[in-house]
Amino acid sequence: MSGEFSLIEKYFAGRVAPAGKQTLLGIGDDAAVLSVPAGQQLVVTLDTLIAGRHFPDSTDPFDIGWKSLAVNVSDLAAMAASPFYFLLSLSLPSADDHFLKPFSDGLVAAADKFAIELVGGDTCKGPLSITIQASGLVEAEQFITRSGARMGDRIFVSGELGAAALGLAHLQQAVQLDELEQVECLTALNRPSPRTDLAEILRLFATASIDISDGLIADLGHILTQSGVGAIVRQRSIPFYPSLEKYQRWSDALHGGDDYQILFSVAAQNVAAMSHLALQLSIPLHEIGEITAQGYQLETESGLQDCSNSGGFDHFAA
Amino acid sequence: MSGEFSLIEKYFAGRVAPAGKQTLLGIGDDAAVLSVPAGQQLVVTLDTLIAGRHFPDSTDPFDIGWKSLAVNVSDLAAMAASPFYFLLSLSLPSADDHFLKPFSDGLVAAADKFAIELVGGDTCKGPLSITIQASGLVEAEQFITRSGARMGDRIFVSGELGAAALGLAHLQQAVQLDELEQVECLTALNRPSPRTDLAEILRLFATASIDISDGLIADLGHILTQSGVGAIVRQRSIPFYPSLEKYQRWSDALHGGDDYQILFSVAAQNVAAMSHLALQLSIPLHEIGEITAQGYQLETESGLQDCSNSGGFDHFAA
Repeated sequence: MSGEFSLIEKYFAGRVAPAGKQTLLGIGDDAAVLSVPAGQQLVVTLDTLIAGRHFPDSTDPFDIGWKSLAVNVSDLAAMAASPFYFLLSLSLPSADDHFLKPFSDGLVAAADKFAIELVGGDTCKGPLSITIQASGLVEAEQFITRSGARMGDRIFVSGELGAAALGLAHLQQAVQLDELEQVECLTALNRPSPRTDLAEILRLFATASIDISDGLIADLGHILTQSGVGAIVRQRSIPFYPSLEKYQRWSDALHGGDDYQILFSVAAQNVAAMSHLALQLSIPLHEIGEITAQGYQLETESGLQDCSNSGGFDHFAA
Repeated sequence: MSGEFSLIEKYFAGRVAPAGKQTLLGIGDDAAVLSVPAGQQLVVTLDTLIAGRHFPDSTDPFDIGWKSLAVNVSDLAAMAASPFYFLLSLSLPSADDHFLKPFSDGLVAAADKFAIELVGGDTCKGPLSITIQASGLVEAEQFITRSGARMGDRIFVSGELGAAALGLAHLQQAVQLDELEQVECLTALNRPSPRTDLAEILRLFATASIDISDGLIADLGHILTQSGVGAIVRQRSIPFYPSLEKYQRWSDALHGGDDYQILFSVAAQNVAAMSHLALQLSIPLHEIGEITAQGYQLETESGLQDCSNSGGFDHFAA
């Protein structure tokens, strides 16, 4: 990290937490220094968002700032980690106040909401691209991976699926949403709220978990591959955004990206206790299927569909 | 982090350290998980390299991989931290084996040399750009910042300055280097070796330190600003790459970028003990000046030059 970060420092001065008990040295030096509390482990992730690829070129800079952080925090949430700190790399065509002001507003708003602190970064001239490295903390050995699902486990998903994909379809003029739907779907697309509220449930009950960024079917596929198991998913149990039916876009709930809900598996004998806690915490959870020994099938009204070749987004596709 | 990292995972399979005592979960999940040893603090940095801006478009992919990691490790070295782990974000126009094979070779070679482990990352389609987030460890409170220089401290620099800038001048056809110079200068430019060997000296003796990425004068300026002091630097004491004289390019040692040597200050009464240790460790150090109460001057053969407005590289300049 070097001096050129002063450009961004200007936009974040007084808006990020000062050096404190855990952040021994923040923005402005060669590196930041942090103290990791005893008994906690460090969970680290990094994601890049490129204009025109991960968000439409027309996206409000506030939303770009918000979403860049949110997608990283969602990865932490999937591991059952609590947000800790993040670093920002911003490449942009020019040091433009009309971009930097709302971008930093969105990033700070998200940082406040998710309780995560900016500790440093780098800026340079180039095509618009944002890379964020976010770190979280988890009690020793309490993190949840993609590889722990076992035959007989029940499969759960939080929230509702498909609204972000429907919002993108609206922006691409594939559908014409009404005003309320536009608000809901564009908020889902541009200002996702990662499920940090699920951490306790995951730590106590999940055998495997992942955040849904590439679509339910593709992301469940990652759990199955890494756990060496199969699954059957009941389409009628999937919590879809209601308007998907109106526009006959069911597949947005299965294959749409950008949901940032959590998909996880729970041993059958723990389902009752988990459901009780979810109710206490007011967290909406839906049981959508079961882990099997092998195969990957979707149960629809017209029969079983094979999902074993579902790939989700391929970021290198044309 | 998500599934698309499997593209890179393919190039690093079996070439990065497996999950071990400190890396509890490596490449391939939503995030990696690390254990930070008790009594150690975490030092974090992040730097982006963009093709055509931070390296010529014609640069060998091996060198791009090497340098992307080296510049980050250099930031850790400046803090007196030992390399720990890193994350990679790679944006490239296409999933091209002719790029990815040598790029990963260079990155792995650097990771081996600097003893730092790749634990995860993200790849996507876009203009060629590499962001690396590197983390190091330092004994509690033993890190060195830019802000601790005090009046009377002596200023030291490691190694030799200006070879990388002379190499770049050769590529830009501003000079025509002979064969030996080409080898030396292009190695300095493309395969910098961060001074991780200085960690003990810095921890024991430095009051402030920085790595030289933007040029000696500009980077010393950062120390002076953040320490609230001034300096006088003697041009005749600066360890310049010998051929600079032949091409009359003295200023490459003052203002050239990409040296990745360490510039630091030491209290006068500790200079003898430090020099003794440097000799034992065979680390070349040069005393180039002194910290003063205010002002920033370069003592040349033709008198004093004022450096207080020296800016170094501005990554947003045209």
